[in-house]
Amino acid sequence: MAVTSARGMRDFSPREKERRDAILDVISETYHRHGFESIETPALEDSSVLHSGMGGDNEKLSFQVLKRGLEPSDLASAKDTSELSDLGLRFDLTVPLARFYATHHAELPPVFRAFHTGPVWRAERPQKGRYRQFVQCDIDILGEPGVLAEVEVMMATADALTRVGVEGFTFRVNDRRLLTELLGAAGIAAENQASALITLDKLDKVGVDGVLTELRERLPAGFDEAMIQAVLTSTTPAQDATAIAALMGNTPEAAAAASELVTWVSQVAGVIGEDALVFDPTLVRGMGYYTGSIVEIAHPDLGISLGGGGRYDGMIGRFLGTNVPAFGVSLGFERLVDILKTSPVVHHDRVALVIPSGADTSHVIALKKHLVDTGHTVRVVSEAKNMRAVYEQLVTDGFTRVATAVETAHTVEELVWKDLT
Amino acid sequence: MAVTSARGMRDFSPREKERRDAILDVISETYHRHGFESIETPALEDSSVLHSGMGGDNEKLSFQVLKRGLEPSDLASAKDTSELSDLGLRFDLTVPLARFYATHHAELPPVFRAFHTGPVWRAERPQKGRYRQFVQCDIDILGEPGVLAEVEVMMATADALTRVGVEGFTFRVNDRRLLTELLGAAGIAAENQASALITLDKLDKVGVDGVLTELRERLPAGFDEAMIQAVLTSTTPAQDATAIAALMGNTPEAAAAASELVTWVSQVAGVIGEDALVFDPTLVRGMGYYTGSIVEIAHPDLGISLGGGGRYDGMIGRFLGTNVPAFGVSLGFERLVDILKTSPVVHHDRVALVIPSGADTSHVIALKKHLVDTGHTVRVVSEAKNMRAVYEQLVTDGFTRVATAVETAHTVEELVWKDLT
Repeated sequence: MAVTSARGMRDFSPREKERRDAILDVISETYHRHGFESIETPALEDSSVLHSGMGGDNEKLSFQVLKRGLEPSDLASAKDTSELSDLGLRFDLTVPLARFYATHHAELPPVFRAFHTGPVWRAERPQKGRYRQFVQCDIDILGEPGVLAEVEVMMATADALTRVGVEGFTFRVNDRRLLTELLGAAGIAAENQASALITLDKLDKVGVDGVLTELRERLPAGFDEAMIQAVLTSTTPAQDATAIAALMGNTPEAAAAASELVTWVSQVAGVIGEDALVFDPTLVRGMGYYTGSIVEIAHPDLGISLGGGGRYDGMIGRFLGTNVPAFGVSLGFERLVDILKTSPVVHHDRVALVIPSGADTSHVIALKKHLVDTGHTVRVVSEAKNMRAVYEQLVTDGFTRVATAVETAHTVEELVWKDLT
Repeated sequence: MAVTSARGMRDFSPREKERRDAILDVISETYHRHGFESIETPALEDSSVLHSGMGGDNEKLSFQVLKRGLEPSDLASAKDTSELSDLGLRFDLTVPLARFYATHHAELPPVFRAFHTGPVWRAERPQKGRYRQFVQCDIDILGEPGVLAEVEVMMATADALTRVGVEGFTFRVNDRRLLTELLGAAGIAAENQASALITLDKLDKVGVDGVLTELRERLPAGFDEAMIQAVLTSTTPAQDATAIAALMGNTPEAAAAASELVTWVSQVAGVIGEDALVFDPTLVRGMGYYTGSIVEIAHPDLGISLGGGGRYDGMIGRFLGTNVPAFGVSLGFERLVDILKTSPVVHHDRVALVIPSGADTSHVIALKKHLVDTGHTVRVVSEAKNMRAVYEQLVTDGFTRVATAVETAHTVEELVWKDLT
């Protein structure tokens, strides 16, 4: 039987790894320039941290790690697997960031801009484009209550997408408070709002009639269907606070939230262009912890989003005891890698040295050292009967020149180079 | 109770993360230049791969992942934890590399030079300098039977150590075949040799007399103590094949192995200097899979090694069915980070923009964009009563200049910069 990587998890061979690293380098450099600072958290967190109720459905997908030193009697007496596990693999980077901030806040600046990237793990059923280990790239601003957080994060996100070569992306924006105002004004009681949001979120899949039908099934009669229908078919511009407030319940609270939304949207639009931001009154985002602005990155080539995020002012308080305002966006790195048709240029002067049959390798080694020291990337290959196959492999691997390591050559200039391109 | 990272696992805050990334970048760039190519394997491997008997004692330290969807009846009927687990976190990078090569060999060059780095996990008792998640940096040459593999790997390792700023390291070298010849010639039967090697490996801890005493306790009487004592007190030079063979059993096989050892040692010494290589006839290296050359990186500041490796010609065959010659060295990244007194220079022009109290942030945002676009790393800070604390934080975080984002300034030249250094 063939030996493979674990189900739903991937190996990366050199060319693909190089492409991924190049894309991540551009994202990383862009975020650093925008003032975000790299942090790292471990892959494993205590189960109490992972299962503190902030991971939504993803919590159920977490890989749990067995306690060490368990005896057969421990297995027999355990009521369920949670008693056998004390650690788990992180399923996102937001819960670990909140835990990190709670642990280290005393040594961090009062407004902390974090760049956090790395693999996360989810025990999903593997399918095309969905993996059990995948990379996320998150930026978050912690400690900034005002919309400057939204503006800086969205500017940096747009810049990162542009620099890696993504064209035509759109930010779909909304605010959880607007949704709350809308549902309240439409006569949907607080205890039914979470269920209504789940239905609203299905607009892309089931259409306007599908959403209305499901709402009628799920909700007690008497809610304002016309108000919901107006939202489902709205084309309200993202910079019209009055129209947004009128659409989303028309309350003073809706007016205040709409005004905030338009403030940051206008500032971002001023930098990246008006067309790149779209107000989507049905955008919900699944996680329960969002408290204000929410955003999703749409791309014409993808039915699913390239990433998203929002404001989660209550989450860090769950770990720290004191609430800390927070806004962040997560880029789905795997989807970026999938849609990018070109890669950031990786420039290495890659040259190969052929060892003549029967030659003393110490001369080859001296030449290799000389080439490495003068800035080349060097691969040593043995002379073969069929050099064509050797050359083809070199071309595949990005090498541009090859020379035989003859005894008479001691420098890059003295070697006779054959062009492979 | 304080919320912390999981026991024995660490967070890295921005300054430390930056230092680690800078060191890893230098290692990575050096290895790439030497012709090693990056690969990546997942953190989790099937238990059958991890527990195929090639991880030595580290297998026992692996974190096991619970199967998904286990029912209480599964727990009750399980005889031990291995029935509840199908995946585990890798405890080294060698076993995953061998599995990777078995999976992908058809698409890889006949001689494959792999650079493989990432975290590994071991459920060890946490203590100073020993963590449950730590990074290894491995290079391996697969498919090269000759000592060119040893020469290229050791050259690249020495170059990487030098470029990150490690001074005074030494390669301690030996060959498993020499140890086998020695023990055979000393009259120690094959079935007792593994036990004898474990004792020999304790020379640093228990001294010459301690090793001899333990050998007497462990082995049947009649072995050649004088021959072992000569090895324990030897100062045989690493480039004297005749003396090495005479010391290590004085058989034709010992002579052949000594000759090979001296061939690669001489070539490496020609590049990095004779004093950097020391023949250590008591060097054993714990893993059972080594078949030839073995090496350990010693440093005067450390009681433990900075890394090590060896030839493991039989291991890949365990996965692939066909033997593939292999030689590799693993750098202990955490120990490198610990002993480096300086860091590779991270050069960013870091500047801070102060938002004047009550100012419109859109002007600040436009200035930030201008600075980012002109290559600066920018942090926005709010004006505060106590600017001294703000400045101190900026200096701590590597910022060199600060300017107030006044309405009249639109470019880097028009801002009035205050030097923080």
